[in-house]
Amino acid sequence: MYIDPSLNKLNQLIPGRFTDEQKARFKTLFFKKLSLEAHRFYGGKIQLVPKCGIFSPEWLNVWYTPGVSSVSTAIRDDNNASFALSSRGNLVAVVSDSTRVLGDGDCTPAGGLGVMEGKAMLMKYLGGVDATALCVDSRNAEGKHDPQKLIDFVKMIQPSFGAINLEDISQPNCFRVLDELKEVCDIPVWHDDAQGTACIILAGLINSLKLAGKDMGDAKIVLFGVGAANTTVASLIMADGGKGENLILFDGKGALHTGRADIQSDPNAYRKWDLCQKTNPRKVSSIIEAVSGADALIALSRPGPDVVQPDWVRRMADRAIVFACANPVPEIWPSVAKEAGAFIVATGRGDFPNQLNNSLCFPGILKGALMVRARKISDSMAIRCAHSIAEYSQKKHFGPEHIIATMDEIELFAHEAADVAIQAIKERLNRVRISWTAVHKQALADITAARTLVDDLRELGYIQEIPQETLASALEEALNSV
Amino acid sequence: MYIDPSLNKLNQLIPGRFTDEQKARFKTLFFKKLSLEAHRFYGGKIQLVPKCGIFSPEWLNVWYTPGVSSVSTAIRDDNNASFALSSRGNLVAVVSDSTRVLGDGDCTPAGGLGVMEGKAMLMKYLGGVDATALCVDSRNAEGKHDPQKLIDFVKMIQPSFGAINLEDISQPNCFRVLDELKEVCDIPVWHDDAQGTACIILAGLINSLKLAGKDMGDAKIVLFGVGAANTTVASLIMADGGKGENLILFDGKGALHTGRADIQSDPNAYRKWDLCQKTNPRKVSSIIEAVSGADALIALSRPGPDVVQPDWVRRMADRAIVFACANPVPEIWPSVAKEAGAFIVATGRGDFPNQLNNSLCFPGILKGALMVRARKISDSMAIRCAHSIAEYSQKKHFGPEHIIATMDEIELFAHEAADVAIQAIKERLNRVRISWTAVHKQALADITAARTLVDDLRELGYIQEIPQETLASALEEALNSV
Repeated sequence: MYIDPSLNKLNQLIPGRFTDEQKARFKTLFFKKLSLEAHRFYGGKIQLVPKCGIFSPEWLNVWYTPGVSSVSTAIRDDNNASFALSSRGNLVAVVSDSTRVLGDGDCTPAGGLGVMEGKAMLMKYLGGVDATALCVDSRNAEGKHDPQKLIDFVKMIQPSFGAINLEDISQPNCFRVLDELKEVCDIPVWHDDAQGTACIILAGLINSLKLAGKDMGDAKIVLFGVGAANTTVASLIMADGGKGENLILFDGKGALHTGRADIQSDPNAYRKWDLCQKTNPRKVSSIIEAVSGADALIALSRPGPDVVQPDWVRRMADRAIVFACANPVPEIWPSVAKEAGAFIVATGRGDFPNQLNNSLCFPGILKGALMVRARKISDSMAIRCAHSIAEYSQKKHFGPEHIIATMDEIELFAHEAADVAIQAIKERLNRVRISWTAVHKQALADITAARTLVDDLRELGYIQEIPQETLASALEEALNSV
Repeated sequence: MYIDPSLNKLNQLIPGRFTDEQKARFKTLFFKKLSLEAHRFYGGKIQLVPKCGIFSPEWLNVWYTPGVSSVSTAIRDDNNASFALSSRGNLVAVVSDSTRVLGDGDCTPAGGLGVMEGKAMLMKYLGGVDATALCVDSRNAEGKHDPQKLIDFVKMIQPSFGAINLEDISQPNCFRVLDELKEVCDIPVWHDDAQGTACIILAGLINSLKLAGKDMGDAKIVLFGVGAANTTVASLIMADGGKGENLILFDGKGALHTGRADIQSDPNAYRKWDLCQKTNPRKVSSIIEAVSGADALIALSRPGPDVVQPDWVRRMADRAIVFACANPVPEIWPSVAKEAGAFIVATGRGDFPNQLNNSLCFPGILKGALMVRARKISDSMAIRCAHSIAEYSQKKHFGPEHIIATMDEIELFAHEAADVAIQAIKERLNRVRISWTAVHKQALADITAARTLVDDLRELGYIQEIPQETLASALEEALNSV
């Protein structure tokens, strides 16, 4: 049996008797088995390739000694020249201590390489941005992960990059690392797990409220789970017109409010305490009371499916909005939430409608920040990015099953990049000025080139086909393990 | 006037009235002017590109979540799996604090980017090795470059790389950084300025002595200049059969011997003091006395042309060997050394015969070390590499004007890689076993692919032609400035 390497016909290989849950389980298993062998086959995912012409060996004199001396001295005399004269201008460092690797927790420093290289690949494929995966051993002499070491590390690599993407750093270190680096660095520092997720959730919320005919200023919103992502979601909602008095957040111990002495007394929980003070003034403590009449429920908690109850959804207001974004299994199956009366359901997965994934955000926002050589990515830039995604999506196939555009739409990212670049200029966070049209055009060209390049490398034989045996054995193992 | 972008006809553009020195000056100026604008035109030299197939958007599930989870946990459970499952297995970090950037001294941290990216480009183009340029801000609170910060930095990035290439770090920090990292790291740490240069000098010396009919054990050798490179040259010569009693080294203050109290009392000069004790037992102090009857003079000191005197060469033994390797101008012009009676003259430049450049060494030695996933590069591996280069060159166009093969010979690097890999296995510094033939074949395939890739990217339009105006204005400026 020939298996189409595109995997587009994967559904046809799944036995009809499988339930939805078994199908989902099969797919996850299949992707995991295939991933392991495919990584081994290619020896990882990223390579470094010249972006300049080497028209003869004579050009080594231009690109290296003696010619390059003029570049060294030009940058020495004006460090800002490094953005134009080196790859730095389009280069992001994806930095992780691998302590919270995409659902697998602490994977030891080298254990994050698969995810960080994946992120680098997405950065190129979706945003036309070059990215380097740096999994870092931040353990101190006692063997503990030291946030100060991570901070010092990023400060040291600043001169080589145009932006930093922090990734998969466990709490509470991630907050301290981001907060300090945002202050001291002169290039954008972006924490994708928090800011990227919050940005796309906000975009989804904006469009869902629009479809439901509701207003951000009046919307009653319950946030279930108070990790790095939902903490940032709450901040962005409040910065974008949502009212703190209409928000109620729930962590593993209950609702956040000023009565939570456990949070008040924990110096590492300063962000949570801030939210205790800004939200839920009536000190509602039960989830049932909180969801009753709520317009939106945003769950970013733990894998489901029975984490969010159908009964909660039933108690929500008319045209209820339910985001169940835990991976790999949403807190409630979309079909169950719909049956319970939800008007719009979104998840983190690509095999259900309305995927809210930070991959829709980070390639565009970072491309835009890089193109104006921004010094920071402000919260206003993240909010601008959310609105950019929302506005772009409204002009496309728009409706309760299509609240947000998908990753296939190259132009989405170019649109985001241009809007973010202009916002950075407005806030004077830019090093160079460039027009909306120019950013849009360049970003579109870079993203298109990145995608066709992968196809061309395959056609020319630089990237080999995946062997049929690899596909077949992953398929067989997955079918046997469901 | 059309200027051929290959620059192969550059000599035809130089006015006939120019002296050799003016020609050399013109070329350097031209390369520098062109380099600056070409870097600006391409926005640096290196990009990151997928090395694996993305056969449809469905494959993002394989390369990223949920599939990649199996890679994270596999590496977590066995860190050595990271070499096979990530790009790490073929990836080198080129690390510099930019304090001694290729003849331009301290260029501030970002100032080294042009050179380090150039190194990364050479790594790919000559050795089929992927490399990331990391220019690091190692200044402490007092604004001083702290070798300990550099050491800590490299220890932190170890999990993401297969080897470390230290570059352009000023003395004496470079010694301490290399010595400590060689001890504590579990991947090879290579200091190319010292070890790479020493390796190629040794290769040149082996072949020159062979052509002169002389023996390493008897050869009287004067080393002029005692920087990182010649310090290591002396060590490798002694480890490869040369006798310390036949060596005399000269630094800026005179000959090294046990009477040099200034060196003995300087704790940072421990390597130099070691050489004081091992060489020049007769305490020869004058350069005239030292070169009289010497078989070889190895100058790695300061740019010439009048640093090494013709009179010194005249006093040397029959069939004298003169290496004048300062850049950009050798300590003595080759024509002058030949007139003074030298049998073999080598320099660091590509426009004279016998270029001794570390680019002939590092791509091969690192490729070989990576292919067996070596834990270290030992001195014996470096010496093996020198012999490998020497032996390969003997089989090619071999003679006093051709002591060493050139960078054009792809097979040279594959040959080195295979010899070095086998040496690592002999010393049990390998993580995996692989045959000479298999290393040779893979290295050859990788290097060939790297070179054709650059041509193909150009043909497909991913890499644009360099504009004629850029070439013309560099030419005009250089001609006007000579």
